Amino acid sequence: MEIPESISKLSDSFCGLPGIGKRSASRIVFHLLQRPAAEVSDFAAALLDLKKKVFLCSGCFNYTETDPCPVCKSGKRDRSVICVLEKPTDMLSIEKSGMFRGLYHILGGAVSPIDGVQPSDLRIKELIERCRGGEVSEIIMATSLTQPGETTAMYIGEKLKDTDIKISRLARGIPEGSDLEFVDEITLFRALQHRTEF
Amino acid sequence: MEIPESISKLSDSFCGLPGIGKRSASRIVFHLLQRPAAEVSDFAAALLDLKKKVFLCSGCFNYTETDPCPVCKSGKRDRSVICVLEKPTDMLSIEKSGMFRGLYHILGGAVSPIDGVQPSDLRIKELIERCRGGEVSEIIMATSLTQPGETTAMYIGEKLKDTDIKISRLARGIPEGSDLEFVDEITLFRALQHRTEF
Repeated sequence: MEIPESISKLSDSFCGLPGIGKRSASRIVFHLLQRPAAEVSDFAAALLDLKKKVFLCSGCFNYTETDPCPVCKSGKRDRSVICVLEKPTDMLSIEKSGMFRGLYHILGGAVSPIDGVQPSDLRIKELIERCRGGEVSEIIMATSLTQPGETTAMYIGEKLKDTDIKISRLARGIPEGSDLEFVDEITLFRALQHRTEF
Repeated sequence: MEIPESISKLSDSFCGLPGIGKRSASRIVFHLLQRPAAEVSDFAAALLDLKKKVFLCSGCFNYTETDPCPVCKSGKRDRSVICVLEKPTDMLSIEKSGMFRGLYHILGGAVSPIDGVQPSDLRIKELIERCRGGEVSEIIMATSLTQPGETTAMYIGEKLKDTDIKISRLARGIPEGSDLEFVDEITLFRALQHRTEF
């Protein structure tokens, strides 16, 4: 049987999005066929708006619709602390914690020679420039605790060692709600090493 | 932090599609932000095309871009057998089996008073009309083996009992590749009841 071209074309667009395979894509398309036309055209408009209206903030390189972005523009944020992140979604996680009131800097990835990502591919130069502006007194390295994340943090630390800027790293340890039985040994090692007074 | 409106709006459109929750929706939107604009606008165009070009075939009520649909129009299909299905996706499954060369009739659901679906809500009247045309000699009831599917099959069987049309139902039994240990008792009961000669 030939599947109508409009159906297979839209399935192809859905298929390959994160978490969507061939089967889910077709389920979604048949679901959309049963939805009102207005809802589907709103969906299409939202897709077009995404690429038309969203760009990178010239300050922190987060996705934004205004330049500078609301965080960089805000008068209520502490401009002396910069939290350094790999990607924009990490910023959502930090903001959700409610603990951080400083500014951000999004690198756009992590140094990983094996994947062909060199320091020059990231926004490290821009970070160093921001740090040399004189306003910044601390940067919090919040890159991932993976090999590329660690390499990136070390590389940036090296670049800033001749400045007075304090460089910190997110605490390592056992996540909230953990059962010790299921915590890996490296995490436990770090948790013992960095234990705090009761 | 305020998430740019274009991002949250598109997330809302993805969220609620089959199999997509809030988290996956946001992952997809951040993925799309990194894709070329042309790819995203093709996606939007495919969405609009779906509602513009796809409608129901006036013969079998399958989704189609031409009326009658390729199956109803085809000279190579056996016009004397109609396979009765609940929904268009079931047709894809039957076609994939490669066993069926007749026509289809898609009811648009199954009788289920508890969900407010009455026989008059389905395309049963249209099926009876097709059957009374004189061309049809057999209908294969391929509704689901659920309470609504069974009710629908019985209701249609009742409506056609004064005709010469042969009514068949898909065979019940153990699916290919099954381990008997995991087959439920009703299926086993049916498989024993309808056992075939070796």
